[in-house]
Amino acid sequence: MTNEELLTEAIRLSVANVHAGGGPFGAVVARNGEIIAASGNRVTATNDPTAHAEIAAIRMACEKLGTFTLSGCELFSPCEPCPMCLGAVYWARLDALHFAATRTDAAEAGFDDAFLYGEIERGVEERAIPTRHAHDLRGEANAAFAIWRVQLSRTPY
Amino acid sequence: MTNEELLTEAIRLSVANVHAGGGPFGAVVARNGEIIAASGNRVTATNDPTAHAEIAAIRMACEKLGTFTLSGCELFSPCEPCPMCLGAVYWARLDALHFAATRTDAAEAGFDDAFLYGEIERGVEERAIPTRHAHDLRGEANAAFAIWRVQLSRTPY
Repeated sequence: MTNEELLTEAIRLSVANVHAGGGPFGAVVARNGEIIAASGNRVTATNDPTAHAEIAAIRMACEKLGTFTLSGCELFSPCEPCPMCLGAVYWARLDALHFAATRTDAAEAGFDDAFLYGEIERGVEERAIPTRHAHDLRGEANAAFAIWRVQLSRTPY
Repeated sequence: MTNEELLTEAIRLSVANVHAGGGPFGAVVARNGEIIAASGNRVTATNDPTAHAEIAAIRMACEKLGTFTLSGCELFSPCEPCPMCLGAVYWARLDALHFAATRTDAAEAGFDDAFLYGEIERGVEERAIPTRHAHDLRGEANAAFAIWRVQLSRTPY
């Protein structure tokens, strides 16, 4: 399938997902033009606020391929991913991202995507969700990193 | 439990997770000082690049409470959440976030957290992962939003 066909399939999924009672989003993970995994938004269907279409499709693709990275694969999403999903694109080491509608379009439909991009750029103590940086425990919290660095059996990801 | 005890428990989990072969992260979701869910990083253990400790704990808490939002709950993480996990904190509608180590500490241990914050602030076309905004399909991609707006049976999230 071409990139345009894959993106069109992701759009089709987003429409079907609304008709099925879910959020207006879909996503396709493909490799060499072949669909590896595809999903609509599953937040309300599975009681999982992280089950955006992109994350659901990434999880399915990893399960199918038996890996925790997706190099060689590309993600197709009708709408620009929110910061959570954009982060997932990076952690999954995807090769490329394709989208059509924007965070502004999502905002006009009542979603927080654009707001979230703004929050992430704000200082930790200026955000809408109260955030406490416990400076006094920073040294203690670095213990795991210190052990990780010398752990010979670690699996980097 | 006090906030300090809950954060200390999250730190303990991050250390235990390294000893168990996982990444150096942990997270606790608590309500009124009582732990609802807790997890270490599960990326390599479950082949899921989105299974950061914070997201794993949020998913567990939602499953336990049977809801897709966690108002009334707070998240305790040894380290400042990456953009993916910070996004999840917002989508889960958590009341507050507590952390101790920073994105810089994570970077020094070899993790991409600080890099990701930088990427998210860049323009879509200037990012390390090639990103294509298919302007020509934007109208088509807005179809799901149009249907969502008039869908009487929709469940906002």
